[in-house]
Amino acid sequence: MIIIMSPSATEEDINTVQEEIAAIGFRPFMNPGVERKVIAVLGELDVRKADLIDQFKAMNGVARVELISDLWKLASRSYHPSGSVVRVGDVEVGADEVVVVAGPCSVESEGQMIRLAHQIKAAGGRMLRGGAFKPRTSPYSFQGLGEEGLRILAKAREETGLPVVTEVMDTHEVDLVCEYADMLQIGTRNMQNYALLKKVGSTGHPVFLKRGLGSRIRDLLMSAEYIISEGNTNVILCERGITTFEDSTRNTTDINAIPVLKHWTHLPVMLDPSHATGHWEYVDSIAGAAVAAGADGVMIEVHNDPARALSDGPQSLTPEKFAVLTQKLKAIARAVDRNINISAQ
Amino acid sequence: MIIIMSPSATEEDINTVQEEIAAIGFRPFMNPGVERKVIAVLGELDVRKADLIDQFKAMNGVARVELISDLWKLASRSYHPSGSVVRVGDVEVGADEVVVVAGPCSVESEGQMIRLAHQIKAAGGRMLRGGAFKPRTSPYSFQGLGEEGLRILAKAREETGLPVVTEVMDTHEVDLVCEYADMLQIGTRNMQNYALLKKVGSTGHPVFLKRGLGSRIRDLLMSAEYIISEGNTNVILCERGITTFEDSTRNTTDINAIPVLKHWTHLPVMLDPSHATGHWEYVDSIAGAAVAAGADGVMIEVHNDPARALSDGPQSLTPEKFAVLTQKLKAIARAVDRNINISAQ
Amino acid sequence: MIIIMSPSATEEDINTVQEEIAAIGFRPFMNPGVERKVIAVLGELDVRKADLIDQFKAMNGVARVELISDLWKLASRSYHPSGSVVRVGDVEVGADEVVVVAGPCSVESEGQMIRLAHQIKAAGGRMLRGGAFKPRTSPYSFQGLGEEGLRILAKAREETGLPVVTEVMDTHEVDLVCEYADMLQIGTRNMQNYALLKKVGSTGHPVFLKRGLGSRIRDLLMSAEYIISEGNTNVILCERGITTFEDSTRNTTDINAIPVLKHWTHLPVMLDPSHATGHWEYVDSIAGAAVAAGADGVMIEVHNDPARALSDGPQSLTPEKFAVLTQKLKAIARAVDRNINISAQ
Amino acid sequence: MIIIMSPSATEEDINTVQEEIAAIGFRPFMNPGVERKVIAVLGELDVRKADLIDQFKAMNGVARVELISDLWKLASRSYHPSGSVVRVGDVEVGADEVVVVAGPCSVESEGQMIRLAHQIKAAGGRMLRGGAFKPRTSPYSFQGLGEEGLRILAKAREETGLPVVTEVMDTHEVDLVCEYADMLQIGTRNMQNYALLKKVGSTGHPVFLKRGLGSRIRDLLMSAEYIISEGNTNVILCERGITTFEDSTRNTTDINAIPVLKHWTHLPVMLDPSHATGHWEYVDSIAGAAVAAGADGVMIEVHNDPARALSDGPQSLTPEKFAVLTQKLKAIARAVDRNINISAQ
Repeated sequence: MIIIMSPSATEEDINTVQEEIAAIGFRPFMNPGVERKVIAVLGELDVRKADLIDQFKAMNGVARVELISDLWKLASRSYHPSGSVVRVGDVEVGADEVVVVAGPCSVESEGQMIRLAHQIKAAGGRMLRGGAFKPRTSPYSFQGLGEEGLRILAKAREETGLPVVTEVMDTHEVDLVCEYADMLQIGTRNMQNYALLKKVGSTGHPVFLKRGLGSRIRDLLMSAEYIISEGNTNVILCERGITTFEDSTRNTTDINAIPVLKHWTHLPVMLDPSHATGHWEYVDSIAGAAVAAGADGVMIEVHNDPARALSDGPQSLTPEKFAVLTQKLKAIARAVDRNINISAQ
Repeated sequence: MIIIMSPSATEEDINTVQEEIAAIGFRPFMNPGVERKVIAVLGELDVRKADLIDQFKAMNGVARVELISDLWKLASRSYHPSGSVVRVGDVEVGADEVVVVAGPCSVESEGQMIRLAHQIKAAGGRMLRGGAFKPRTSPYSFQGLGEEGLRILAKAREETGLPVVTEVMDTHEVDLVCEYADMLQIGTRNMQNYALLKKVGSTGHPVFLKRGLGSRIRDLLMSAEYIISEGNTNVILCERGITTFEDSTRNTTDINAIPVLKHWTHLPVMLDPSHATGHWEYVDSIAGAAVAAGADGVMIEVHNDPARALSDGPQSLTPEKFAVLTQKLKAIARAVDRNINISAQ
Repeated sequence: MIIIMSPSATEEDINTVQEEIAAIGFRPFMNPGVERKVIAVLGELDVRKADLIDQFKAMNGVARVELISDLWKLASRSYHPSGSVVRVGDVEVGADEVVVVAGPCSVESEGQMIRLAHQIKAAGGRMLRGGAFKPRTSPYSFQGLGEEGLRILAKAREETGLPVVTEVMDTHEVDLVCEYADMLQIGTRNMQNYALLKKVGSTGHPVFLKRGLGSRIRDLLMSAEYIISEGNTNVILCERGITTFEDSTRNTTDINAIPVLKHWTHLPVMLDPSHATGHWEYVDSIAGAAVAAGADGVMIEVHNDPARALSDGPQSLTPEKFAVLTQKLKAIARAVDRNINISAQ
Repeated sequence: MIIIMSPSATEEDINTVQEEIAAIGFRPFMNPGVERKVIAVLGELDVRKADLIDQFKAMNGVARVELISDLWKLASRSYHPSGSVVRVGDVEVGADEVVVVAGPCSVESEGQMIRLAHQIKAAGGRMLRGGAFKPRTSPYSFQGLGEEGLRILAKAREETGLPVVTEVMDTHEVDLVCEYADMLQIGTRNMQNYALLKKVGSTGHPVFLKRGLGSRIRDLLMSAEYIISEGNTNVILCERGITTFEDSTRNTTDINAIPVLKHWTHLPVMLDPSHATGHWEYVDSIAGAAVAAGADGVMIEVHNDPARALSDGPQSLTPEKFAVLTQKLKAIARAVDRNINISAQ
C-alpha cells in the first residue's frame, strides 16, 4: 500500500500517518522524492486488511491511497496460475471445449421444455438453462413457475442427459434449487446480494455468477471471492452486458471483459449475448465475438415461439436459428484452437 | 401501446400483428400515414399486461413498440397527485420540514453510538442511521455487529427519542430488524432483490429504498411498485449516486433525479451526499444542492473519528462539521420555502 | 411523427397542437384510444424537418414526441439496401476481404516508418496508419511531426504500395492532408466538429470517421450524414471504444455496434481494438472478436519498440506479434466466410 | 511517478526499468516491500514529461504506473491558491456575485433578441448568450444566422450594456467572433478540438469552456491548460451534463463537478441547467442546486416563445419564468453567502 500526501499536508499530518502505520503493526517508509510526499506501508498486507485503505484515506493531509496488490485472492490467477475447470454434471467448463448453454428465458410448460431440450441437444447445446424463479422489473410480469419449473427442468435433464442451470433469487430457496439443478445461477440483480453469495458458497454446487449491470470487473471478482471464501471453488463468471449511454441495444456487451477476466482470474468465463444485446438479430454476431475473444462458453436464449414467450421473446432465437449459430460457432472455435462438438443429426 | 413496423414489413407481417392484437382482446387500429406503418392497440392496457411489449417486439416485421403510459401505477403521481407523507416514529417525511438523517456508516459500539446520537440531535438531526448488517464489497471487510448493532440502535433511540433506520440485507433478517428499527433500509445492491422487496412490502414498516448504482429512475420506481403492491405504501426513495465514467468521485450524484422523481411520483425523495460523492469535503456542497433542488431530506454519514471508522471513513463528517452543515442547510431550506428545525443548544 | 399528450393535457392544449400541425402543412390525426391522447402527424416528414420534434416537445401538454423514421437518410441502409464498398487506393473496404490497417500511433521518423511499413505489408496489412497531426489530451505531450510526418507517410506508400490514412484535426489542414493521404481520419474528439465534417465532405477523399467516446451510434450516423450530404459518399465508420464506468481498460469496446451499424447503414464498419482496450495484451482477443462479429476491417497500432513510442506505446503490438495476429484473424475471417490475404513471406 | 511491477516480473524486467529511468535523467528508487516490487522515479517530473507514463507502461513486467502529481499545472489550484476572477465586459465572474447568463439557444432575429435582452436584464441577467454558429447533430437542422447573428448580439449589448457570449466552432471563425463578442464559447462537442483551443488561447478574449459530454473532469482541466498555456488565463469552466445510462433527462448533471473543480482549480466554474436536464420543468431545481453547491454562475436558456424556438425549445424558460427563477436564486445565493443583484423593476 502506498499513501500519497496532498501538497498541502503538514509535517504533523505526515507524522500522524506514520505513527498510525506503526500502531497497526506495519512499517512506514518515507519515499524520497521531490514531488509530493509518498509513504510506503511495509509488511504483509493481507486482503483481510483491505479496510485500511479507507482508514488512511480519511486522515488529514492524505490525497490518495493506492493498493499495490489486488483485493481478491482466491479468485486471482496469481493464486492459481492455470485455468480452473468447473465440472457441471459431465460437462467441463474451462477446458478445450467451448460450452454452449441454451434454453428459454422462463420454463413455461413441460411439453415446451422437453421439446426444446431435444432440439438444443441435437444442435450442439451441452447444458440447459431455464428460469423457474424469475427476477422481473415489474411486479406485474410473469414471475416464473417456481418449484414446478424446477421439476420440469429436472425432467428435461432426465430425457436428454444435459445438466441444467437455473436462477436462485433468495437464500431460502437455495436448498430447494440445489435439489433439482446442476448449477445455481446468481442473476445480475443479485451479484452483490452478499447473503445469497455466502449461502451458495456454503453448498458444493457449481455457481454461475452473472455480472451486475452497473458493476466493475473487479466487483465481479470480489463477489466470486465471497463464494470461494465459503469453500466453494466451482464458480463460472458470466459477462451479460453493462449499462451505458448507448441505447440502441438493451445493454452494452463488455467484450473486453473476456480477456481481462482471463488475465486476472483462473475461473472460467462465459458470455450471454442474448441479454447483452436484447435483440435476436445481434445474438449471432456477439456469440461469435465471444468465442473469438476467448470465452469458455456462451449462454443463448432459445424459444420455440419467441413472439409468445412469457419473457424475453425479442432476444430469443428459434431452435432453427440456434442450430445455424452453433455451426458457425464451431467454425470460429476451431479458428482459435478450441472446439465445439456437435453430434451428427 | 403503439406498434411501429419496420420499412421492410410485409402485408402478411402486418396482418399477423393485427390478428394477434385481436386475439388477446384488444382492438388494432391502423394509423394512416405515409411514413412507416403504425398500429395502435386500443383497449384498457393495464400495467399487468406490460409483458405484451415483449410479445409484439418479437414478431416479424415489428421495429419498435412504444408504451404510451407508464409501467408503474401505485407509485405514480397521476395515481396520487398530492405528495405522500411517510411517518417514521414522530417524524414526517414529505411534509414542510427537510428531514436530516445522520449517523455512522456502521454501528461500532454502544458508547460511540449514544454519544453520536446526542450530538446529532443537538445539531438538528431528526433520525439516526447506522448499519448493523453491512453489505461490503470484500468478504474480508467488517460485516457489521448484527443483532448487537440493532440493540445499540434501539438504545440510542431510547436515549434521544430519534427514530432509527438500518439496512436489512436478506429476507430471513426482516422480522428481526423490524423488532428494533423504525424504518428498513434497502441498500443500493439490493434495489432489485425482488424477494426482499416483497418481504418488506408485506410488513407495515416504512422502507427507505436506495437507488441501485446502475439503475434508471424508472427501475427505482418499479422497485417501489413491488413494495407498494404488497400493501405497504410507506416508501421513501433515496438517490445516492450512480455509476458513470467520471472517477474523481466515488459515484456521480444524479441531482436531476430529485425534480424528475418529484414530477413522476408522490413518494418522498431524499439524497445521500456521503455515498454520492465519497469524499467528506464535497458532502457540504452536495447536501446543499439537494435541499435547493427540492429533496425532502438528506442522509449524512457522521463519525466521531473518521480515520478510525470501520467503514466509509473518508466520506464521514465529524459531529462538529455536521453541526455547521445543518446551519447551512437550514438557510437553504428557508430560501426554498421549506424548513429545518434546530433546537437551541 | 407521433405526439403523446400528458394525462393532464387540456382540450385546449390538444386543439393548439392540432392547429399547429395544420399550420405547418401537415395533417393531424387524433388516435382513438382509452389511454392517453395520441396525435399522429401525417404528411411527408422529411429529415430536413427534424427540428419539428423540438417544436412540439415544447408545447403545453405534450409528454413525448416519437419520430417514426430515422433521422439520417443518406447513411441509411433503407436508402441503399446493399452494403457500400469504399475504395482507398486499390483497397476495397466493405467487400469480401476483411481489411487490416496498421501502423504506429505517431509517425516518428522516416526510417522507423518505412521499416514498419514493410513489416506490416509482409504480415498482411493492407493499409498504413500513422499520425502526423496528433490530438493529445495534454498540451505538453508530443503533438506530431506535422507536414514532415505526411511526407514520410507518402514515402512509405511509395515504397510499399500500401495506401495511407492519417488524421486531420482542423479545417485549415484539410487541403494539405489531402495532398499526401489516401484517406482522411476524423478522430474521436472531432466526431462532432461539424465545420471539419463539412470540409472533408466537400473533398472527394475517403473519410475514416471514428466514433466519439461519449457518442451514441445514432450520433455517429448523423456525423456521417454531414459528410455525405456534402456530396462525399466515401465514408468508413470506426468503433474505437466508448467511455463507461469500467476502468480496467482504457475504454469499453462496444462490440454490439458492429451488428447494429451493419443493420442500420450501408457504410463499411471497422474496429480499432488498440484504442478500444488500451492494452496490447487484449488487442489480439478484441481484434478477433471484431472479425467474428462482422467488421469489415480492423485498425491496429504497431510499433517497433512500444516502450519508446512517442505515444500510445502500451497499446501497440510489435511487428512480430502483429504477424501472429493476422494469421489468427485470417482463420477467423474464413470461419465467417470472409477472407484476409497474406502474401507468402 | 511510481512504477508497480507485476507479480510475474523477472529480475531482468526490473533491471531494464531501472536502467531506463536512469537513461532519461531520473533516479530509480527501489521501494522495499514484501508485496509487489515498486520503483519510485525521483527527480523533477515536469508535466511536460507526462508521456513518460506511457513509456513505462509499455515495458515488460510493468503492471501499473501511478503519477503522483496532477497532469495540469497552470489550471491547478496549487499553482494559484486563491480563486481567479475573470472579467467579461464589466462583469466579474468568480467574485462574490453569482453571475446569471441568459438568452436564447439561437439568435433568431434582431427584434426577438433585443426584446429578450431587455427582459433578461430586468430580471437580473448579467450577460447575454445566443448562438450565431450552431453545432447541430443533424446537417438538416437550423445552423444559425452566422455573422448576422453576431451583429444582432452586438446590437443587444449596445442597447442593454450586457456583455455577450457566443459559440465559435472553427479556427477560421475565431477572429470574426472576437470582433463582436465579449466572450468566446467552446461548445461541448469541441472541448477537445485542440486546434480551436490553441487558437482561442492565442487571443486575449475570455473563453467559456464547456465540458464534453463524455469527458472526465481532468480532461476538462487539460483542455483549459491548452488555452492557458497559449497565454490566455481568462477561462471559465462550465458543467453542462454528461452522458450516462439515465434516460429520463437529456444528460446527467454532474453536480459533484462543482465542488471537485473548486477544489482542483482556481478557475471560475458555472453550470448550464438547461442543457444538463433538457427539460424546462427541471431547470429551476438544478439552477438552484448549482448555486447551493458553490457555482460562480449559471447559464440559462430563455426564449419568448419556446414552442417556436428554432432550437432547444423544450429546455427554454419564458422570460416570465426566468424572472421567478432569478428571485429564487437570489435567496439561495444569500443562504450560501453569495449575492445576485436584481435591479428594481
